[in-house]
Amino acid sequence: MAKGDKINFSTPSGFPEFLPSEKRLELYLLDIIRRVFESYGFTPIETPAVERLEVLQAKGNQGDNIIYGIDPILPPNRQAERDKSGETGSEARALKFDQTVPLAAYIARHLNELTFPFARYQMDVVFRGERAKDGRFRQFRQCDIDVVARRELSLLYDAQMPAIITEIFKAINIGDFLIRINNRKVLTGFFKSVGITEDKIKSCIGIVDNLEKIGETKVKQELEKEGISGEQTQKIIDFIKIDGSVDEVLDKLKHLAENLSETEQLSLGITELQTVIAGVRNLGVAENRFCIDLSIARGLDYYTGTVYETTLLGHEALGSICSGGRYEELVGVFLGEKMPGVGISIGLTRLISRLLKAGILSTLAATPAQVMVVNMQEDLMPTYLKISQHLRQAGINVITNFDKRPLGKQFQLADKQGIQFCVIIGSEEVAAQKSSLKDLKTGEQVEVLLVDLAEEVKKRLG
Amino acid sequence: MAKGDKINFSTPSGFPEFLPSEKRLELYLLDIIRRVFESYGFTPIETPAVERLEVLQAKGNQGDNIIYGIDPILPPNRQAERDKSGETGSEARALKFDQTVPLAAYIARHLNELTFPFARYQMDVVFRGERAKDGRFRQFRQCDIDVVARRELSLLYDAQMPAIITEIFKAINIGDFLIRINNRKVLTGFFKSVGITEDKIKSCIGIVDNLEKIGETKVKQELEKEGISGEQTQKIIDFIKIDGSVDEVLDKLKHLAENLSETEQLSLGITELQTVIAGVRNLGVAENRFCIDLSIARGLDYYTGTVYETTLLGHEALGSICSGGRYEELVGVFLGEKMPGVGISIGLTRLISRLLKAGILSTLAATPAQVMVVNMQEDLMPTYLKISQHLRQAGINVITNFDKRPLGKQFQLADKQGIQFCVIIGSEEVAAQKSSLKDLKTGEQVEVLLVDLAEEVKKRLG
Repeated sequence: MAKGDKINFSTPSGFPEFLPSEKRLELYLLDIIRRVFESYGFTPIETPAVERLEVLQAKGNQGDNIIYGIDPILPPNRQAERDKSGETGSEARALKFDQTVPLAAYIARHLNELTFPFARYQMDVVFRGERAKDGRFRQFRQCDIDVVARRELSLLYDAQMPAIITEIFKAINIGDFLIRINNRKVLTGFFKSVGITEDKIKSCIGIVDNLEKIGETKVKQELEKEGISGEQTQKIIDFIKIDGSVDEVLDKLKHLAENLSETEQLSLGITELQTVIAGVRNLGVAENRFCIDLSIARGLDYYTGTVYETTLLGHEALGSICSGGRYEELVGVFLGEKMPGVGISIGLTRLISRLLKAGILSTLAATPAQVMVVNMQEDLMPTYLKISQHLRQAGINVITNFDKRPLGKQFQLADKQGIQFCVIIGSEEVAAQKSSLKDLKTGEQVEVLLVDLAEEVKKRLG
Repeated sequence: MAKGDKINFSTPSGFPEFLPSEKRLELYLLDIIRRVFESYGFTPIETPAVERLEVLQAKGNQGDNIIYGIDPILPPNRQAERDKSGETGSEARALKFDQTVPLAAYIARHLNELTFPFARYQMDVVFRGERAKDGRFRQFRQCDIDVVARRELSLLYDAQMPAIITEIFKAINIGDFLIRINNRKVLTGFFKSVGITEDKIKSCIGIVDNLEKIGETKVKQELEKEGISGEQTQKIIDFIKIDGSVDEVLDKLKHLAENLSETEQLSLGITELQTVIAGVRNLGVAENRFCIDLSIARGLDYYTGTVYETTLLGHEALGSICSGGRYEELVGVFLGEKMPGVGISIGLTRLISRLLKAGILSTLAATPAQVMVVNMQEDLMPTYLKISQHLRQAGINVITNFDKRPLGKQFQLADKQGIQFCVIIGSEEVAAQKSSLKDLKTGEQVEVLLVDLAEEVKKRLG
């Protein structure tokens, strides 16, 4: 075994792994997210981790991302098979870096087997060659939903997204959050209306999107550098500083549109925003959970309508904890079809890591076991096994302690893993068909008839 | 978009993906498996998809497997960053090909943060450059449990494995199955006792392990080729043909041991087998669910004690649907420690694919939605949204149909996706605060007060 000593067995930089208490938290969150996604009829899919390189690079969708190609490594004794194995590596393949390009490929692959509007969720891990730094990982899990249509897609799908975000974060119970809603047509329409030429709109939106990060003065400077006039710049600043209640913002926007020319797109954007907001209200999302924020644009080029960001109040530095928007020409790329869609994404690995660090979330117990049946007398093991099975049948998670140790040590072992209850049975208890149930949290110990044990534990677990 | 047309958007060969109805089946099975694993106190972990190559190749553990190395591909606009990105590819990394080597690395990485015996489950995907053929995939999900100790590990952990296998496959409801149990010490001990030299025992076990596949005559020939004498061969054949009830097999084995010499290891194996069987019985596993099968050995070198295979009766050609065993020198490899462990594995992707093909399992509905609130009158949409939310709050999965279509088309759309109920509400129903509830399976349609709707749907869903 000496050989093993020299191996660097640490994880490769940027590839995280969780302790059991953290992985259990992740599963707990995934269960909540999945439940909410499914309650709106989103159905699960999973695309392979590996796609053809040309698929990942379609339409320049690799973007700025470093992706990982894969290449077969044969074991020493099979070098001769290289040609026979079918794994010659001649076909370039790489690990997926997001779930949008694979969704587009999935839809193209299964077009006739899917029902549209196609509403899917996907909670796979993706891979990016990010520089590994605080909260940035090279492998991370994303929880995405998208609904995609072949022709028209109702704006009410856009309205459902804030309702879904609200339910998820209420259930996760991480405090107050605010969903900021905007519409890219409002932005581009406004820029057009103040006379910014088509070729500059994209960079102007990029500058405005950074308002929160860089501040007003810097935004002005950057706009100036783009050759935007002082008058236009002032209009832009006034525009993105429009605030107030949702209705106030909508009123101000409509009023603004009245005083501008070429407002076709701006007006369309305002109407869309109004429709979405009405839907959000009809879905019962509380007024304090959402707002219109004209400064958000989402960096990505492909958004064409509604966009969302979600801020955890009091923890704004965390950035958006759930974002997304509507697009038109994203998922139809392999089919040469326009397919409107709207989606949101939760970067779960990063979110967990940051919420744990900020003390907003806590890890769970290290084991799902709720009860330890302790080993008091080796000769009673058959009884311990039977009682353990009895409790399991009642839906309780049980560890039977097989090792002979002092009782105190066994309680310690249970407590260390976060097991709340110990079941203690000696000859006396067997004779009386009862057990001692010890609550390690309170120290309390009660006698319970074996026939009542499962019910008693379930009652105490709540 | 013309460019997109030319891209081959199919999945790379051997990398499978599921339709929603299949992915939902996988999640359904994963939920069952997880529930059973957790009921025995196994805790979840997930190791990264990527490990250092030297870790995967430690102790020659790459085995016969073709594994996939990964290599960063920079986007065209970032070529200059190669040196700065930290992604120079100088550190060889590859995708994990099983979950045992990563478990060993995980334990080494977190030794002081884990509690032993460490009982973990892991349900990740792994990657192997298999020739892609029927039921063999290059990416597949494995559901593994292992319990690992730092010194001694009770044989009762071995006894729990058949109990766990039984509960899982009973819950999945795929018909009768038989767990075949053996002990490697019985095998090696027996071979030693009949005078087979140490250097030949491994290949003899390999030959015997193939009995079911190649038949008795071929086994004899192969043993002869190994230089095993006719007399020894006959003893071996007699040995592996020992059958009968569990107790009969144990009796015959003990009787056999009495007539052989150098039976220390054989006797130890028989004692272990006896202890495990007693535990299996105390855990309440029905007698018809398990047997002792002296011919099974599990190909892998690392097993040292109990071994398991599980056969689906009437579908023996599927091969073992759940296998595993006990090992001593596997997971301590990076620490230079002996760490006894016992584990089992379900190759879920392959199992689902084969059970679907054999008609043993069926896919689920294409959507988790149980109700569609149809769009009867566009102006009633606010009501439809509210009722949808009301049903969701009651734990029902709902799709609200936003698109205007004839009612018949909407029913079709629901039925196609496997949605059982449609909720139909027009002005009349709103006035009377009721709805029509249509069961698409039976065609039955009933009137239900809105206030009773959630309860009625839940009752009918069962």
